[in-house]
Amino acid sequence: MSFVLHPRLMADTAVIVDWTLSRVLLMNDKRFPWIVLVPRRPELHELFDLDDAARTQLTGEISRAGERLRAWSKLRGRGGDKINVGIIGNLVPQLHVHVVSRCKTDAAWPAPVWGHGQPEPYGAVELMRVVGEIRDAL
Amino acid sequence: MSFVLHPRLMADTAVIVDWTLSRVLLMNDKRFPWIVLVPRRPELHELFDLDDAARTQLTGEISRAGERLRAWSKLRGRGGDKINVGIIGNLVPQLHVHVVSRCKTDAAWPAPVWGHGQPEPYGAVELMRVVGEIRDAL
Repeated sequence: MSFVLHPRLMADTAVIVDWTLSRVLLMNDKRFPWIVLVPRRPELHELFDLDDAARTQLTGEISRAGERLRAWSKLRGRGGDKINVGIIGNLVPQLHVHVVSRCKTDAAWPAPVWGHGQPEPYGAVELMRVVGEIRDAL
Repeated sequence: MSFVLHPRLMADTAVIVDWTLSRVLLMNDKRFPWIVLVPRRPELHELFDLDDAARTQLTGEISRAGERLRAWSKLRGRGGDKINVGIIGNLVPQLHVHVVSRCKTDAAWPAPVWGHGQPEPYGAVELMRVVGEIRDAL
């Protein structure tokens, strides 16, 4: 079996880049700088479905994504006050990791972003610009 | 500087056990089987404040906590349908990791537990019993 991105993730995100383990996606919601990492292996649901080596790799990728997304957010005046990481998967069972850069003045603060209000999609040009900028920043 | 548990975490949880890196806490909210891991080092805020070795250790501990909490939840008929992991820290800046065993019939499903309704504390005897059971299960 090979890796196939869950249709819901495909619909809600744009691809930024593939890393060693994860496909790195931008959530199409301009309220928050919001990345999603999806390990490119089939049949993963929980963090403990990964073997030790892959889990260490994923953690490194989460950490890198968080640190660099924070730097990009600060540069762009879009926050970076706190990085939120979530592995939830109650609706989309494919293992995926949210990495969100939060700002003390953002739409959901101090609540988590998950399930908060309605997403505000980027315009097409803006989406491509942000994907390109974050790709360079990561 | 030495490690001191944040007063808010101290007030909201009971200590289960100390692992190699993390203090393992039970959230005092009987709606959900809910563990919090706090790396016992001072001045940590983000996952990327840890060096590689500590981050790998923490990931192992998150994974172990999730897997065993799921097993305990299933045994007790308290769910285990999905493990939710969150590193948020918008209110409590000390680095801490939520590991929550979710059930499709629980009070918040499919929403995340953070900020959902009001906590329902255990009674004192029940709290001690659950701490003991989860300590054995971990």
